[in-house]
Amino acid sequence: MMNSLQPLQFSTLLLLDLAGTFVFALSGGATAIRERLDLFGVLVLSFAAGNAGGITRDVLIGAIPPVAIQNWLYVAISILAGLVMFFWFQLYRRLRDRILVLDAAGLGLFAVAGAQKALVAGLNPVAAALLGMVTGIGGGMVRDLLVTQVPIVLRSELYAVAALAGSSTVVIGNILHLPPPYSAAIGALLCFAIRMFAIRRNWNLPIADASNQE
Amino acid sequence: MMNSLQPLQFSTLLLLDLAGTFVFALSGGATAIRERLDLFGVLVLSFAAGNAGGITRDVLIGAIPPVAIQNWLYVAISILAGLVMFFWFQLYRRLRDRILVLDAAGLGLFAVAGAQKALVAGLNPVAAALLGMVTGIGGGMVRDLLVTQVPIVLRSELYAVAALAGSSTVVIGNILHLPPPYSAAIGALLCFAIRMFAIRRNWNLPIADASNQE
Amino acid sequence: MMNSLQPLQFSTLLLLDLAGTFVFALSGGATAIRERLDLFGVLVLSFAAGNAGGITRDVLIGAIPPVAIQNWLYVAISILAGLVMFFWFQLYRRLRDRILVLDAAGLGLFAVAGAQKALVAGLNPVAAALLGMVTGIGGGMVRDLLVTQVPIVLRSELYAVAALAGSSTVVIGNILHLPPPYSAAIGALLCFAIRMFAIRRNWNLPIADASNQE
Repeated sequence: MMNSLQPLQFSTLLLLDLAGTFVFALSGGATAIRERLDLFGVLVLSFAAGNAGGITRDVLIGAIPPVAIQNWLYVAISILAGLVMFFWFQLYRRLRDRILVLDAAGLGLFAVAGAQKALVAGLNPVAAALLGMVTGIGGGMVRDLLVTQVPIVLRSELYAVAALAGSSTVVIGNILHLPPPYSAAIGALLCFAIRMFAIRRNWNLPIADASNQE
Repeated sequence: MMNSLQPLQFSTLLLLDLAGTFVFALSGGATAIRERLDLFGVLVLSFAAGNAGGITRDVLIGAIPPVAIQNWLYVAISILAGLVMFFWFQLYRRLRDRILVLDAAGLGLFAVAGAQKALVAGLNPVAAALLGMVTGIGGGMVRDLLVTQVPIVLRSELYAVAALAGSSTVVIGNILHLPPPYSAAIGALLCFAIRMFAIRRNWNLPIADASNQE
Repeated sequence: MMNSLQPLQFSTLLLLDLAGTFVFALSGGATAIRERLDLFGVLVLSFAAGNAGGITRDVLIGAIPPVAIQNWLYVAISILAGLVMFFWFQLYRRLRDRILVLDAAGLGLFAVAGAQKALVAGLNPVAAALLGMVTGIGGGMVRDLLVTQVPIVLRSELYAVAALAGSSTVVIGNILHLPPPYSAAIGALLCFAIRMFAIRRNWNLPIADASNQE
């Protein structure tokens, strides 16, 4: 867990991770407010959106207790994001486009960090790439399910594919023995780029035609 | 798990825990019947409402298999509650107000016991307080999600705050080196009191105004 | 995990497990297509329907990482099923009745294999029987919850009872010291038979009358 990252990379990696958590938590808070949840509901959705992906990954690789539970900074930053949403929801609305850019950056960070953590835990390349993706998309899925909406990531948007591209880059880099920081940087950038292109050009994945398909 | 509580406190603690499970399981069965689930659905919701909070806590702290799985008494008491609901649903309706009192007592017990178990597992104070709360509210959340309702605890009622007050009391008592039974008793009573006041006075947490907030 | 099955039973057991995963994954893909999810959503629901039961069991017994994550064949077979659904959904519709037979066979396999794995992990008989059932029905439950439907298994159909009969047979066989392959075969057949009868005769579990029950 966190300890294994200390002391050298402590400041940078943890800060990046917390920044990603904060941005994701904002989206959780926004969803909660739109659904008219009370203050506690806002904080729970903030925490879930920011941390459920990482918690799922940690449970599946046996990193218990999950870092988001064990390190109180993740709880604190999620609560902060929830309170920001609760008191300045209009601000969020006005900045939504810029926050979407931050969200894409957070997705890249989470996908890459998740894949690396899975590799360190000894998982095989396929599993590591998938768990990196889960780290990136899990929070949004739990956020949506808590307000009984079909997760947006299952329905539209090139979101999971971007995360998978980022996490796969880390895994491929590991197979090719590239220095981890390099493949992490390339993976995060690739994820970010795909996500931004998808937003700009309104790219979507195909949907099967259930009615009159041959 | 259970073993660590034996032999001294076995009877009292386990009985209290099973009593709490039974009361929570009643609420699960009631929800299932209102949603017109079949007998199996009633039993599943009874088990989920009574045990999902504790199972979540155990998975997150690495107490595997969770005590609710390993000790068959939890399954048995949950099934009993489900059958009671299935055959005497009208009785439950008539006694609903009195059962709400029992539910508040169960919440206090679960929050306090959950926080203590997390502390024993070596979690930090913030995490232990949160996991105590999760132990108390998790069952109701899973119960609601299984019938695709937004968990009531996210929407209204001073329920989670009461649980958090109870679990935090245990954690603070631990920091101050108070004897665990004392802080547990105070925490459970505090949770119960807050919950009963909230019901009597219809206290709720605030909701953000998403439409015209500045 | 997988290793413990090798080398003797590797081919047969793994092939049966993968076949069950494939059939369950088909049902996940079909649900996703009916709900108009995109290609990624189809693959996620295929994977969830095929593997969520086994993953839940593995997390609860501490078999980490879950075999469905660790062995990439489970991912591959699930994706294959999702793609089959995506491109030949009409074929699935035409063969639905025959696939229901395969689904009943898969249920028997999963329930029996899940109970055996739980017994090997040292769980008590009640827990092992329940976890066998969870292995069989968990995938379908998560599939339904991901598209915010109340799990069909909670509402109607003699599905869970069939799984429980199969897993209980394995557990009873273990208590009676019968050779595992025999009780497994009997259990799987029993589950299959109950399920097929239930489909043919339209058997259902009772529903409590919430309105005018005395």
